[in-house]
Amino acid sequence: MLNVIGSEEAKKMLAEHFSGRFSPGTEKVSLMDATGRILAEDVVSDCDLPAFDRSTVDGYAVRASDTFGCSESLPAMLRFAGSVMMGESVSFSLEKDSCVYVPTGGEVPPGADCMIMLEYVQDYGDGFRYIEKSGAPGENIIKKRDEASCGDIVIRKGALLTAGYIGSLASMGCAEAEVYRRPVIGIISTGDELIPITEKPEGAMIRDVNTYTLASEVIQAGGIPRAYGIIRDDRDLLFETAAAAAEECDMLLISGGSSVGEKDSTADVLRRISGSELLFHGLALKPGKPTICADYDGKALFGLPGHPLASYFVFDRFVRPLIREMSGSGDDVLTVTASLSSAVPSNHGREEMIPVALEGDTARPVYSKSGYITALARSDGYIIIPRDCEGRLRGETVEVILF
Amino acid sequence: MLNVIGSEEAKKMLAEHFSGRFSPGTEKVSLMDATGRILAEDVVSDCDLPAFDRSTVDGYAVRASDTFGCSESLPAMLRFAGSVMMGESVSFSLEKDSCVYVPTGGEVPPGADCMIMLEYVQDYGDGFRYIEKSGAPGENIIKKRDEASCGDIVIRKGALLTAGYIGSLASMGCAEAEVYRRPVIGIISTGDELIPITEKPEGAMIRDVNTYTLASEVIQAGGIPRAYGIIRDDRDLLFETAAAAAEECDMLLISGGSSVGEKDSTADVLRRISGSELLFHGLALKPGKPTICADYDGKALFGLPGHPLASYFVFDRFVRPLIREMSGSGDDVLTVTASLSSAVPSNHGREEMIPVALEGDTARPVYSKSGYITALARSDGYIIIPRDCEGRLRGETVEVILF
Repeated sequence: MLNVIGSEEAKKMLAEHFSGRFSPGTEKVSLMDATGRILAEDVVSDCDLPAFDRSTVDGYAVRASDTFGCSESLPAMLRFAGSVMMGESVSFSLEKDSCVYVPTGGEVPPGADCMIMLEYVQDYGDGFRYIEKSGAPGENIIKKRDEASCGDIVIRKGALLTAGYIGSLASMGCAEAEVYRRPVIGIISTGDELIPITEKPEGAMIRDVNTYTLASEVIQAGGIPRAYGIIRDDRDLLFETAAAAAEECDMLLISGGSSVGEKDSTADVLRRISGSELLFHGLALKPGKPTICADYDGKALFGLPGHPLASYFVFDRFVRPLIREMSGSGDDVLTVTASLSSAVPSNHGREEMIPVALEGDTARPVYSKSGYITALARSDGYIIIPRDCEGRLRGETVEVILF
Repeated sequence: MLNVIGSEEAKKMLAEHFSGRFSPGTEKVSLMDATGRILAEDVVSDCDLPAFDRSTVDGYAVRASDTFGCSESLPAMLRFAGSVMMGESVSFSLEKDSCVYVPTGGEVPPGADCMIMLEYVQDYGDGFRYIEKSGAPGENIIKKRDEASCGDIVIRKGALLTAGYIGSLASMGCAEAEVYRRPVIGIISTGDELIPITEKPEGAMIRDVNTYTLASEVIQAGGIPRAYGIIRDDRDLLFETAAAAAEECDMLLISGGSSVGEKDSTADVLRRISGSELLFHGLALKPGKPTICADYDGKALFGLPGHPLASYFVFDRFVRPLIREMSGSGDDVLTVTASLSSAVPSNHGREEMIPVALEGDTARPVYSKSGYITALARSDGYIIIPRDCEGRLRGETVEVILF
């Protein structure tokens, strides 16, 4: 029988053994490929942003004081002193009682402190422009360095590069970004009952669902899955494959063989890997009891349950947060609160995870035995019932962790 | 001047012109690469799931009625009739008053209707097993076909392939999945003031931020960006590039040149593309007024504002939903409610979008002029103030659309 530990204790052990100990390092990627990656360095602006006083409208650069008090019936008459072209650097200063045409994004000449929109200016072809609305100093202008000064740290290490950050990096001239490398996660399925998914199961054989579910969870967590396929219940073969994978990968997941039956060799195999330390074998979790974790010099080696749903939940609760931390990002659990559509009894002495489907503000439990992977496809998330809790009542407000 | 239309009217026109009219088609991808894609066909199970009565525990298969009334002090004594191996197809039936060892995931023999966990069974080496806890019919067994029968539709077209679905597809033997092709979105930046981001801006030149921001937004929306780079303000050159891109891509985005200045050629260029119909030029939106949309035989051609922030918002509100619909997925806007930390006046006669940073339940407006792309990096989402609303009060509850 397993000596189970609670989920809080397991989380604490994982934090003590793995937090900050192992990093897959960083790499440079093209800005075009950086979306969704985690920035691994502070980024400093290489120029003033903007590098000049910039107009935000099509119109006329003026001295605001020249327009004070003007109106449609009494326009301010300003001498037209020329046009600024887009991208052109202005070499003159705006004189009093004159104006200059500046397009949106163009440079506002020195001396001007306000842009009057085209709509409020009349041009009768007499060399003057007639301003029909007064402007305030600073109006419709982005001042030089308003966004950043050359040398400012604009984006900090650890930022998840969404479109806004990508645009910011582009404005600072970063054609490449230094990001955390995605950790490579080895995946092994073990069990004599397993066949490749391309084969049709006969007798009591079942398809190797876990390789695919876990690979997909790894991708969703920001890692790169490396699948080693199905390894038969042969301790030596499993040991050789696991030892090689522990070297080649940043973390290892072996699903199946994690219980205490005669054929359950994962714990022995993980113990045999030289330098590895078994942290726990057995979690007070339903589903997910037969879970193993070993520390191989700061790399986490997991033995996960063979049941796909159990393996899914153990990954979600214990493996995913580690992968996210390794890749430099924080955890990203999204939760909503909902009211239970029916009572959920739970008195197993184990913390229980129950898939639920959301219907408006109501959470409907999706019952499943732990082998069922399609339960996930019918659910939107899951609720956790603590170890010492006998269940939840109908109508009770629960926190739903979204998939 | 632009004849602006409201956002509701624009959305209606987009729906009328593009909904369901253009699809980039479907493609087969390996299940290992299918995470995050949208399923393009109903998937039918090619076998019964499970294909046999499966034990969910390590223990003994029994007839439940043989265990009724037993206890630790009065165990049921059942003849040990052998063990089922993992993956083995059982060829015998369980007789009355006997039991068979079955590992987790193994086949429960016909005749047995209950699995008793190992923990409740004693083996004194006398050819019998002593059952110390009674079981109920069906206990610890997943019945054949409980999950699905051969021929059942298990996953419907349109499902976003998250890990649960990937696992389900694996269990049904789908090594490949038919998914919607990601639409290819052409991106052109236009403006004489633009330089490649690898160059250092001099004078009033600015870096081409929009190519990168829009490419990143396209990726986030599930599309594939195809960047055509910076095209100078040369109507013929812009026309040639745009016409070619409209053929090669599933949608086209031209940023810059979408206002009504002398140099703003996007509307003319889109009009010149043979067979295209200009739907609108100008939105009652702040930022985002200079926006153009043309219908090119069911393909959407957009002229977006040159200001990165304006272009970002117009994409988010009008382009992203179209891309998501084209790729077979629904829209996925996440919103939270929050209380405003300060009043937000808005009386421009235009619907206004204001970036906000979330601090707990409070939303703090992040003010910016429309050129600022770093405002996005400092924000968590944005609020929309309707066209006819004069603003929001401090403390007012607002809906924040998350980035």
